[in-house]
Amino acid sequence: MDSIIFLIRCSDQKGLVAKISTFFFDNGLNILACQEHVDELNQSYFMRVKLCGKDLCMSRQSLEQAFGKLAEQLSLDWSVHYSDYLPKVAILVTKAPHCLYDLLVRHEQNELKCDIGLIISNHPNLEGVAKKFKIPFYCLPLQKTGDIEQDKNQRQEQEKQIDNLLCQHHIDLTVLARYMVILSQDFVAKYAGQIINVHHAILPAFKGANPYRRAFDRGVKMIGATAHYATGDLDEGPIIEQDVERVTHEHSPKDLVRIGADIERIVLARAVKAHLESRIIIEGNKTVVFS
Amino acid sequence: MDSIIFLIRCSDQKGLVAKISTFFFDNGLNILACQEHVDELNQSYFMRVKLCGKDLCMSRQSLEQAFGKLAEQLSLDWSVHYSDYLPKVAILVTKAPHCLYDLLVRHEQNELKCDIGLIISNHPNLEGVAKKFKIPFYCLPLQKTGDIEQDKNQRQEQEKQIDNLLCQHHIDLTVLARYMVILSQDFVAKYAGQIINVHHAILPAFKGANPYRRAFDRGVKMIGATAHYATGDLDEGPIIEQDVERVTHEHSPKDLVRIGADIERIVLARAVKAHLESRIIIEGNKTVVFS
Amino acid sequence: MDSIIFLIRCSDQKGLVAKISTFFFDNGLNILACQEHVDELNQSYFMRVKLCGKDLCMSRQSLEQAFGKLAEQLSLDWSVHYSDYLPKVAILVTKAPHCLYDLLVRHEQNELKCDIGLIISNHPNLEGVAKKFKIPFYCLPLQKTGDIEQDKNQRQEQEKQIDNLLCQHHIDLTVLARYMVILSQDFVAKYAGQIINVHHAILPAFKGANPYRRAFDRGVKMIGATAHYATGDLDEGPIIEQDVERVTHEHSPKDLVRIGADIERIVLARAVKAHLESRIIIEGNKTVVFS
Amino acid sequence: MDSIIFLIRCSDQKGLVAKISTFFFDNGLNILACQEHVDELNQSYFMRVKLCGKDLCMSRQSLEQAFGKLAEQLSLDWSVHYSDYLPKVAILVTKAPHCLYDLLVRHEQNELKCDIGLIISNHPNLEGVAKKFKIPFYCLPLQKTGDIEQDKNQRQEQEKQIDNLLCQHHIDLTVLARYMVILSQDFVAKYAGQIINVHHAILPAFKGANPYRRAFDRGVKMIGATAHYATGDLDEGPIIEQDVERVTHEHSPKDLVRIGADIERIVLARAVKAHLESRIIIEGNKTVVFS
Repeated sequence: MDSIIFLIRCSDQKGLVAKISTFFFDNGLNILACQEHVDELNQSYFMRVKLCGKDLCMSRQSLEQAFGKLAEQLSLDWSVHYSDYLPKVAILVTKAPHCLYDLLVRHEQNELKCDIGLIISNHPNLEGVAKKFKIPFYCLPLQKTGDIEQDKNQRQEQEKQIDNLLCQHHIDLTVLARYMVILSQDFVAKYAGQIINVHHAILPAFKGANPYRRAFDRGVKMIGATAHYATGDLDEGPIIEQDVERVTHEHSPKDLVRIGADIERIVLARAVKAHLESRIIIEGNKTVVFS
Repeated sequence: MDSIIFLIRCSDQKGLVAKISTFFFDNGLNILACQEHVDELNQSYFMRVKLCGKDLCMSRQSLEQAFGKLAEQLSLDWSVHYSDYLPKVAILVTKAPHCLYDLLVRHEQNELKCDIGLIISNHPNLEGVAKKFKIPFYCLPLQKTGDIEQDKNQRQEQEKQIDNLLCQHHIDLTVLARYMVILSQDFVAKYAGQIINVHHAILPAFKGANPYRRAFDRGVKMIGATAHYATGDLDEGPIIEQDVERVTHEHSPKDLVRIGADIERIVLARAVKAHLESRIIIEGNKTVVFS
Repeated sequence: MDSIIFLIRCSDQKGLVAKISTFFFDNGLNILACQEHVDELNQSYFMRVKLCGKDLCMSRQSLEQAFGKLAEQLSLDWSVHYSDYLPKVAILVTKAPHCLYDLLVRHEQNELKCDIGLIISNHPNLEGVAKKFKIPFYCLPLQKTGDIEQDKNQRQEQEKQIDNLLCQHHIDLTVLARYMVILSQDFVAKYAGQIINVHHAILPAFKGANPYRRAFDRGVKMIGATAHYATGDLDEGPIIEQDVERVTHEHSPKDLVRIGADIERIVLARAVKAHLESRIIIEGNKTVVFS
Repeated sequence: MDSIIFLIRCSDQKGLVAKISTFFFDNGLNILACQEHVDELNQSYFMRVKLCGKDLCMSRQSLEQAFGKLAEQLSLDWSVHYSDYLPKVAILVTKAPHCLYDLLVRHEQNELKCDIGLIISNHPNLEGVAKKFKIPFYCLPLQKTGDIEQDKNQRQEQEKQIDNLLCQHHIDLTVLARYMVILSQDFVAKYAGQIINVHHAILPAFKGANPYRRAFDRGVKMIGATAHYATGDLDEGPIIEQDVERVTHEHSPKDLVRIGADIERIVLARAVKAHLESRIIIEGNKTVVFS
C-alpha cells in the first residue's frame, strides 16, 4: 500500500500539530505530506496527513483503535483512507455526453483512482458511450404523464431503484454528470457528502434551470460552472470547484452551451479527483480543499 | 484630428455594409477599422466604423447632415465621436482609494483619453489623493441622523449638488469608483448610458451590500468584479466587463477584499477605456463591446 | 447550403469594404457577418465575410469567376468556403490518447464540422480508441535500429506511406495530436497551412523535447500549450492558440503532464475548430484568427 | 507582536513535523499556521511555521538559541522573522511609472508591510511620483558617452553609489520595478535573495531586451510577466510569480506594452508581498512559495 490519509477536523487548540504528528512518529509512520487549515472565525482546525503506507507494521484495526484514543482526547472528527482501497463510483446522466465521456476517459487513463461500477440514466441515448468503455448502463426512464400525482410516484419509484443500485454496488461516490432530475431531500440526506453535482453556472448566480440562457439574457461577460456536494437545497451545497471563461456579445446561447461544456467537465473532473484523493473536508456549507 | 468614429445600431437588412461603407468612400473617408455584430435573435445590427480624421474635407456639420440623410433612409440609430474632443469625466468615490488611484494613474500615463474634471466624495478622506493629481475635490458629506425623513432630504439635497456639479463641468461620463451611496432613479435616468459603476461581485451573484462577506460565507472558489452602466435597478444595468480570481478556503474575508480590489480596478479601467474610445453600444439591458 | 465564407488578404487601400460589400450586395448575397483587420505596420488588410448561402442564385463557378475579376482589380489573395463541404481530416498520434479522444468526442457531438477520414500512428496502442469511434486506424511503426542510415530510410518510407494515405483520402487538414515523430521539411512544405500541431509549452518557451520536464526544472509558475501550423522550423510555425494553467512548487513533473494534457486538448480543439470554420488567415509567420 | 515566522529547509527525514512542532509546543508557542513541502526528487523538506507572537515568554535571543540547538541536531537551514520588524525596501526604477505607482499605492494602503526607504533611478522623470508619496528620490543618471571604457566606469561608479545607499539605509529588499540597467554579477551576488526583478515576459520566453516587440513579431496569443530573484544570469533567477493575458492579432506592439503593464505590476506586487510575509524559500534556482 502506497499511503494512508487521515482527514481531521476539530476545534482549534494548542499543541495539535505536535500531538498528532508525534502519534504518527511514535507509531513508525513517516509523514509524506501534511496540510492544515485554521478557520480563525470559527476557531476550527482542519488537517490532512498523508503517511507512508509501507511503514504500517500493525493491523489497520489497531491503528484505528490507537488513533481513536488520541482523537477522543482531542475531540477530533476524523476519517482514514487507505490507498489500496478503490472507491466505488456511480455516474448519473441524462442526455449530455460531455461530462460522462470526460470521466470515463480520465478513468481509463488512470487519472481517477476508482472503480466506476455503473452508469444510470433517465434516458437511453448514452448507452452507446457506456458500452464503449464497458461500464454497466441502467436506463431508468421517467415519462411525464401530466398527472402530478402519477409523476411524483414515478419519480419516487425511480429514485428507489437508483437507491437500490447504489446499495447493491456498494457505491462510495455518486457523480451527477449533468443528471437533469432533481433528487429528493431524503435521498440526498442519505448520501450526504457522497454526491457531487456539476451546475452550469458560477454559483450562486443562475441557480436552477437554464443557466446559460439566463446568462445570455443578462448579458454577462463571464460564464462558468460549479462542482458541489448535493444537499437538500438545490444548487446550495458546499462548493468544491469553480471555473470560468470569458464570453462576448458575439456568443449565441448555443455558443455558451458549447463553451460551458468545457468548463463543466474540467470543474467536475477536478472535484471528483479531489474527493477520490481524500483532499476535501466538508464544514457546514463550505469545503476545505487541500491542494 | 486622428479619427472619427461612428456607432450605428439598426434592424438588420440587406446591403447595410455596402451602403454605409460606400457613403464613406464616396465622401473620401478611409475606413481604418470596421467592426460589426448581428444579433440574430432580435434581428439587430451594430456597427463601429473608425475613419481617418485627416481625410475630412467638409465641415463636421455637413458630414453629420449628409450621414443623417442616409441614416434616415436606413432607420439607423447613430452617434459620431471625433478624436480631438476630450470627454469630460467626473469620479465619485467614498473611502476606498484603489479604483480612484488606478484611474488617476492611468489618466496621467495617457492611457485614458479624457479630461478628469472633478472628484466628488461623501467622505473627506480621499482629498489627499485628489491633491496628488491636482484634480478638484468636492466633499459632499452625508451624516445619518437616524430620522428617515431628514436622511432622505439630505440625500436628495446632496444628489442635487452632484447634479449641479456635473452640469457646471459639462461632464460626459460619471464613474462610480466604489461610491457607496445609492443614486436615485431620477438621477440615474437623467444620465442614462453616462454612468459607469463597479460592483465587487460577478453579477448577477451577490447584488447589493457586502458581496465579499457573502461570497466568503457561501464558500465560493472564485470572486470577481463587474463594471456596468448604472440604471434604476441596483446592480442590474448593462454589463460592460467582468473578471475573476481564484480563491480558496485559506482566504479570509479580508483577503477577499484585497484580492477583489485588484479585480475591481482592472475591470473598471477597462470599462471606462472602452467607453471613452466609443467601443460600446447599449442595447436594452446588454452591451456590445467592440474589441 | 447555410453559408459561404470568403477569406481575403491584400494590401490596404481606400474603398475596400465598400467595393467588396457592394459586390456581394449587387449579387444578392446578404452578409451574415463581416470581420476585418488592418495590419498598420505592414499595410495589410484581412477580411472574413460570411454570406447567406440560401441567397446564391448562380453557380459556384460563376460566383468565383465574378469575384475573381474584382479580386484581380484589387489584387486580393482570397479563398472561398462552402458550408456544405465537409473538410476531410486525418489525425496523427503516437501513444498519448487525450487529444485524440477529445477530437473524436467533439466530432461525435457535432462540434467539429468535418469528416475524420483516418487515424495514423507510429504505435499500435491507440487502435482501441479508434475502434470505439469506428475510424480507420493505420499503424505505421518505426523501430529504431541504431543504424542512422537505416533509421533515416525507415522514416522516409513511413512518411511516404503517410503521404499516400493523405492523398488517397483527399485530406484537407492533418492534425498532429501529440504525434511524436518529426516530419520532414519537404512533407511539411507540401502541406503548408494544412497541418496543425500542438506543442506542450507556451511557445516560444521550451521548444523541442520534454517541455514539461524542463518547465519543472526551471521552476515556472505557469505551464501551457500552443497549437500552431507546422512549418519546416520545428515549433516555429504560425501560432493559432495558446492557453495556460497556474502551477506551484507542489506539482511534480507527473502533475505537470496531467495538468498540461487538459490545456493541450482544449488548445488543439479550438485551433482545429477555427481552421474548420475558416476563421484563420496565415500571414508570414503569424495568424489572424477571427473570433 | 502578532506573529513569529520560522522558515526551515533540510533534507527529508522521519519525525520532522513531530520534533519541530513539539519544540514549539514545549516552549508555549501556539502554531497559527504550518505549511510544508516535500521535494521527493531531491529528498528536501521545506516548512513555514507561523507562531502566535503574544505567546513568547522568553527573549528572542533565547528562542533563537534554543531553536538553534534543535536545528543543529536535525541539520536545519532556518531563519526567523518577527512581525514587529518592518523590512526596509528600496525601489529602483528607470522611466516607466506603473510598477512604482502600484507599489507606493499598495504601501500607502498598508497592503505591503514594509518601510520604503528610498527610490533610486537612472533618470529624473519619476521624481514627481516619489514626491507625491514623500519617499526620498535619488537620481543617479548614466549618460552614454559612446566610449566603452568610460561607460563601464560610469556604470561601476553608479552601482557603487547604489550599493552605498542600500547600506546606509539598511535595506533588506531591493525591488527592480522596471529598472532598465543590468546590475553586475558582484552586486547581485552580494544581495543574493534580496533583489526582486520583474521581467515583462513569461520566462524563459523572451529573455533580454524588447520582449513585447519580440512577442508581437512571433505572433503569440498570450503575453505575460515574471517576478524573480535577480541572479548573475540575466532573467534566469528563481521565479516567484508569473501571470498572463490573452492577446490577438488586433493588438499592436503598443497595446502589448499597455496590457503587459497591468500584468507586470500585479506579478511584482504579489512577489514583493510574498517576500515581505516570509512566504518564500529559495532552493537552487527554484522557489517554494507558501500560499
